[in-house]
Amino acid sequence: MEKLIEKAREIVEEIDKKIRSDDKNKFGEFIGMGADGTPTNYIDKIAEDIALKIIGKEGNILSEECGFIDNGCEYTFVIDPIDGTRNAIAGIPFYGVSVAIGKEKLKDVSYGIVKNIPTGEIFEAIAGKGAFLNKKIIRVKKRNKPFLCLVLGESGNEKTWRISNKHHVRAMGAAALEMCLVACGAAQAYFMGKKSLRVTDFAAASLIVEEAGGIVRDEDGEELDLPLDLKVRSGVIAGCDEEILKVLI
Amino acid sequence: MEKLIEKAREIVEEIDKKIRSDDKNKFGEFIGMGADGTPTNYIDKIAEDIALKIIGKEGNILSEECGFIDNGCEYTFVIDPIDGTRNAIAGIPFYGVSVAIGKEKLKDVSYGIVKNIPTGEIFEAIAGKGAFLNKKIIRVKKRNKPFLCLVLGESGNEKTWRISNKHHVRAMGAAALEMCLVACGAAQAYFMGKKSLRVTDFAAASLIVEEAGGIVRDEDGEELDLPLDLKVRSGVIAGCDEEILKVLI
Repeated sequence: MEKLIEKAREIVEEIDKKIRSDDKNKFGEFIGMGADGTPTNYIDKIAEDIALKIIGKEGNILSEECGFIDNGCEYTFVIDPIDGTRNAIAGIPFYGVSVAIGKEKLKDVSYGIVKNIPTGEIFEAIAGKGAFLNKKIIRVKKRNKPFLCLVLGESGNEKTWRISNKHHVRAMGAAALEMCLVACGAAQAYFMGKKSLRVTDFAAASLIVEEAGGIVRDEDGEELDLPLDLKVRSGVIAGCDEEILKVLI
Repeated sequence: MEKLIEKAREIVEEIDKKIRSDDKNKFGEFIGMGADGTPTNYIDKIAEDIALKIIGKEGNILSEECGFIDNGCEYTFVIDPIDGTRNAIAGIPFYGVSVAIGKEKLKDVSYGIVKNIPTGEIFEAIAGKGAFLNKKIIRVKKRNKPFLCLVLGESGNEKTWRISNKHHVRAMGAAALEMCLVACGAAQAYFMGKKSLRVTDFAAASLIVEEAGGIVRDEDGEELDLPLDLKVRSGVIAGCDEEILKVLI
C-alpha cells in the first residue's frame, strides 16, 4: 500500500508541474468524448496520461476519460485528473488534482490526496489515520453564528441558493477542493444538490472529510456509498456534523 | 505619480508578506469598530497599519478602518487592506489587497493594483496605459456559448441566482479579485446586485476592468461614479461588454 500511496503522490506532483508549465491557451481544446460521456479537453487528457503512465500495471484505474482499466490488481486508483476543469480553462485560480486508492466501492477507499494547483495546498487522508493539509492534521469546524459558511457546488438548486440569504455562500467550481475546505474547517458544508457527481469527483475528498471528523452523505442526507463505476451519479453533502443536514435538506 | 505607484506596490508586497507569515488563528479577532461602521478584525488592522506607515504624509488615505486621512495632498490612496476578509479568516484561498490612487472620485482614479495573496497573482492598471496580470497585458473575453461564465458577489439577489440555470456561476467572496477575473477574461461578468460595496472595495478593480476593455456600472447598468467617501454604497456590474447587461438586468 505504501508504494501505491507514493505513486498517488507522484501523480499529483507531476500533473501539477505539467499544468503549471504548459500553454494555458491549449487547456480548453476539444480532444474527443471521454468514457464518462462528457467532452475531453486537452487539459484533462494530458493530466490523465501522466497518471496512466505513472501507474502502469501496478493498479487498476478508474478515470473520467479512459474509464475503467482492469490490470487484475487488488487496488484501483480513482482519479479526477483535473478537479475544476472549467476553472482551469477559464483562468479562475481554484482547480486541482484528485487521486484515491480503493477496491470496489467508495466506502473501502483507504487513501485520498487532493492538490490545489494555484496555491500548492495538499490535502491528504489515510483511513484510520486522519486528514492533513500540507502534512498538518486538520479537523472540521463547527460554527453556531449566522455566518455559518456554506460552500455549494456550482449548480446549486433553488433551495440551496435560498440558503444564501441566511448564511454566507461560496460557489468555487471544483468539488473535491470545496469538500476539502469543509475538512480543514474553512467552510461548514459543501452541498451539490443535483445527481451530477461521479465517484471520481469525490472519492479522495470523501475520505479527507470523514478523517477530519466530518460527514459525507448523498443529496438527501442518506448514507453515500457507490461502486467505483463512472455510470453512477450522485449528489453530495459534506458537512462539519450531522446538525448541518437540518439546514440543508 | 511614479513615486506614489511605487508606494502602492510596496504596500501590496508588505501586506502580502505579513499575512503569509502571521498566525492565521488571530486573523478573526475583533479589534473594534472601523470608520465604515463595520467590525475591524485583526487581519484588517495589521494590513491597514502597514499601508498607513508606508504612505506616511505623502498622500491622503481612504481606508475602511481609519476612514479618510487628509494629509493635504493632491492624491488619495484608496485602500481595501484585505479584499475578501471573511475568506482570509476562514481559510478559503481567495483574498487579496487592493490599492488605488485617485483624487476626488472614482472616475479620476489613475492607478490600481490588486494582489491575490494565496496565488501571488498581481493585477495592475494605469489609466490610458492598459491592464496587466503579472506584468502581461490582459483583455476581457467575450463568450457566446451557453457556458458564459459569470462571477457573482456572495450576496447575489434572487434574479442573479436564477442566472445560474443558464450560465456557470461562481461566488468567490472577494469583490476586487472577482472583478479582476473579468478583466483577465476568466469570467464574463461580476455582479453585486445589492448596494453594499464601498469605493474602497472596487476603486482599483474598476480601473483594471476598464483598462482591459470592459465596462463598470452600478447595479442598474447606469454609469458608476461616486466620491471617495466611505458613506456611499453601491452595487457593481463589471462586464466584458455592453451586451452582458441585457443578461444581468
